[in-house]
Amino acid sequence: MKFTIKQIAEILEGTIEGDPAIEVNKLSKIEEGESGSLSFLSNAKYTPYIYKTEASAVIVNKDFVLEQEVDCALIRVEDAYLAFSKLLEYYQMAKNNKSGIEQPSFIHKTASYGDGFYLAAFGYIGENVKIGDNVKIFPNVTIAENVSIGNDCIIQSGVQIMADTIIGNHVSINSGSVIGADGFGYAPKEDGSYSKIPQTGNVVIEDHVNIGALTTIDKATLGSTIIKSGVKLDNQIQVAHNVEIGENTVIAAQTGIAGSAKIGKNCRIGGQVGIAGHIEIEDNVGIQAQSGIGRKLKSGSIVQGSPAFDFGDWNRSYVLFKNLRKIESRITDLEKK
Amino acid sequence: MKFTIKQIAEILEGTIEGDPAIEVNKLSKIEEGESGSLSFLSNAKYTPYIYKTEASAVIVNKDFVLEQEVDCALIRVEDAYLAFSKLLEYYQMAKNNKSGIEQPSFIHKTASYGDGFYLAAFGYIGENVKIGDNVKIFPNVTIAENVSIGNDCIIQSGVQIMADTIIGNHVSINSGSVIGADGFGYAPKEDGSYSKIPQTGNVVIEDHVNIGALTTIDKATLGSTIIKSGVKLDNQIQVAHNVEIGENTVIAAQTGIAGSAKIGKNCRIGGQVGIAGHIEIEDNVGIQAQSGIGRKLKSGSIVQGSPAFDFGDWNRSYVLFKNLRKIESRITDLEKK
Amino acid sequence: MKFTIKQIAEILEGTIEGDPAIEVNKLSKIEEGESGSLSFLSNAKYTPYIYKTEASAVIVNKDFVLEQEVDCALIRVEDAYLAFSKLLEYYQMAKNNKSGIEQPSFIHKTASYGDGFYLAAFGYIGENVKIGDNVKIFPNVTIAENVSIGNDCIIQSGVQIMADTIIGNHVSINSGSVIGADGFGYAPKEDGSYSKIPQTGNVVIEDHVNIGALTTIDKATLGSTIIKSGVKLDNQIQVAHNVEIGENTVIAAQTGIAGSAKIGKNCRIGGQVGIAGHIEIEDNVGIQAQSGIGRKLKSGSIVQGSPAFDFGDWNRSYVLFKNLRKIESRITDLEKK
Repeated sequence: MKFTIKQIAEILEGTIEGDPAIEVNKLSKIEEGESGSLSFLSNAKYTPYIYKTEASAVIVNKDFVLEQEVDCALIRVEDAYLAFSKLLEYYQMAKNNKSGIEQPSFIHKTASYGDGFYLAAFGYIGENVKIGDNVKIFPNVTIAENVSIGNDCIIQSGVQIMADTIIGNHVSINSGSVIGADGFGYAPKEDGSYSKIPQTGNVVIEDHVNIGALTTIDKATLGSTIIKSGVKLDNQIQVAHNVEIGENTVIAAQTGIAGSAKIGKNCRIGGQVGIAGHIEIEDNVGIQAQSGIGRKLKSGSIVQGSPAFDFGDWNRSYVLFKNLRKIESRITDLEKK
Repeated sequence: MKFTIKQIAEILEGTIEGDPAIEVNKLSKIEEGESGSLSFLSNAKYTPYIYKTEASAVIVNKDFVLEQEVDCALIRVEDAYLAFSKLLEYYQMAKNNKSGIEQPSFIHKTASYGDGFYLAAFGYIGENVKIGDNVKIFPNVTIAENVSIGNDCIIQSGVQIMADTIIGNHVSINSGSVIGADGFGYAPKEDGSYSKIPQTGNVVIEDHVNIGALTTIDKATLGSTIIKSGVKLDNQIQVAHNVEIGENTVIAAQTGIAGSAKIGKNCRIGGQVGIAGHIEIEDNVGIQAQSGIGRKLKSGSIVQGSPAFDFGDWNRSYVLFKNLRKIESRITDLEKK
Repeated sequence: MKFTIKQIAEILEGTIEGDPAIEVNKLSKIEEGESGSLSFLSNAKYTPYIYKTEASAVIVNKDFVLEQEVDCALIRVEDAYLAFSKLLEYYQMAKNNKSGIEQPSFIHKTASYGDGFYLAAFGYIGENVKIGDNVKIFPNVTIAENVSIGNDCIIQSGVQIMADTIIGNHVSINSGSVIGADGFGYAPKEDGSYSKIPQTGNVVIEDHVNIGALTTIDKATLGSTIIKSGVKLDNQIQVAHNVEIGENTVIAAQTGIAGSAKIGKNCRIGGQVGIAGHIEIEDNVGIQAQSGIGRKLKSGSIVQGSPAFDFGDWNRSYVLFKNLRKIESRITDLEKK
């Protein structure tokens, strides 16, 4: 997207110093400015950069005083930081603001969708699918039968949403994620082989949930795997069948949660964490990266290690682990006496 | 799918107490019953729930005696648990029981397929592909050239099967998995850069193998990466080039197996395990979650840790690790004396 | 692909002993030879195999002397090992050497591409995309708006490349990878919920980079996530927003790198490693598999553990960890005295 700084000054209700016809096509930090980019200066610490930045234009506070000449155009606004944030949001919105149905795409005759619908080419909408208003579906996406999607959702390219999944409003799912695949349930037979346990449940994703790229959320064996309102999941996370994740819990990349685990509200879970099946993690729990959780965690606890225990205790043990050689020498010294 | 309880009673050869026209569209546990769901009661422990469940109908044993009135309809059968299992399997089967070729799809003129074939829209069948009877391929799947697939296989949406892969009978592959991509083989050059080692082998998947979602199995550099009969792989597993996994071995999510490792039969491998390249794991080995395996493991061993050693020994060491502070105080006390 | 050994001998400038019409359709190790395969014998250690291999033909050195009869045809060349390597490369090249535009595919009217272009069916080329010469794009790929791709690149099936990504020359991206998805950036609000921080940057991939299957590289919040020339990434790696990876660094499968981490040149990073955000790893660093990196690492260091420290020190501590029970008994013995 290209804009003249005249257009931008109008959006921000600012005034221009320089040529209003200058065009910009991206946003940058002032220290990384380049031809065609638009930056901002808010923190005084970065003032020296305005005299050497290669940005084509910089947003500054109304009362900012130049001490030498600059090469860039200026846009003066009430609050440069707020103005730049506003532009970022504007950019984010504009980026996904498509509508219409591209061809070839596939919409089953029993499916329905609301106003402002965008379906990119190679999108597949199965039998009985119900889609609300203002939903944007990017290329190569599959929405299988009986899925329902609320309003204002964004489904990025390559996402696979399996049968019976229920998705609320203001949900975004990043590229390549798989929602509602069969869970990993097998019953051992006498001859050492396994038979598949039918997986007949679904996935329910509540409002304002954001899901990263290449994340998997399996359907429940019976009932629902539930991702509650406001949950934020990063990339490459695995959520097994019948898991429940509470409101506003945030989970970093590559964490795995085994079947039927129940995670509370407002938890902060690091990357590459493993959580065993059938355990409960209460509200407001913090889990450090790469930890392994094998038992119930009480509300408010902060843990580390595999298996994890109290964060402070774990750190004290780990410091001693690093110095085990010294500890062993002290024993040897004592033995000599 | 909607059924009247009359239809269900016929499938189960049961008798109805209540209105035969009642419709159900999902299965649920009795304690999670809701309008439109069908539950079962088998274990006496759950009997109290039948008087308060919101399920529309409940399957009960023939000889079950009601002690008060219930709101739900009843279907009486010989064995409620078996009847419910039968329904689950019926549901699973019905779900994937599609046939025909949807448009647009792409089938190379040299490709062949058997009876009962389902190819969803945006499915790609490359040159020389051979597909057996009763194979179901869901949307947005690529089957590259020279792939052969046996009978009764299910390939879920978004799966990518690369050239030369050979797949047996009764195999299912879940959404987004990638079978037969080039392995990670690079030879260092004198200037610090790397040259790619050509990857010309393939992947062989035997009968009754189930593969989860977003799992990768790389082709062999030369020869075959082999997944033997009955193996069950969960989601987000990485299997590198030239690996061999033995019959009926089960592997949980996010585990990674490096190149040329050989894994025996009937092993049980936890989630987030890492297995180094070129090592052998014999039959019946158990590996705890998050372990790292860097050397050969003997048949029947159970290990934990990174690097892993005997499960019991590891646990004893870990208990002492947790208490290292106390151990260090005991040394300090001794030193004072 | 099928070749007669006459054709192969011509490519290799070799001479044939046996029937020139014999056909081969795959390459194999001599000890795994089978009907239809072509092998080579270079290392004297493997000589016994030539008398029992089932390969249809074997490439041998010009001066190799048979000591008994063989069942296979021979192709004699100057250097059997080099000749076989040449064939492997020839195979690799031939495999991806497609051109033309298959239908149905989607190319936005503003997009451009060079000579030798291959676009498979169900490929999506968005607005303003610029593609160089000799680029091969396999089925079910999305190239979103404003992406630029240089010359001689291979994009395997199911890859998703998001808006504004810039890709150099001689880059290959394996199946299902997602390049340029929004990073994981959320700001906490007073009520415990989070608001999304707009992600307006992009991903820049320099020349000769190879990316595995189902790997994710997120766009920068502002500016660029940068993968420098010659980097090799395995499968299922997660690279977060604003990360920079230096020239010729090699990273094994399932490793995760958090936001704004900066990794130097010529590093060798094992599988399942976790690297925290905002830290620097200098050049030539080695990181053992499953390690966790929480602080800056100096040039040339080799580390292990979670959190990681010097590789040798870590190993000495781990040996003592394994023997903690003995250490504790020695303390008990001392206490008794």
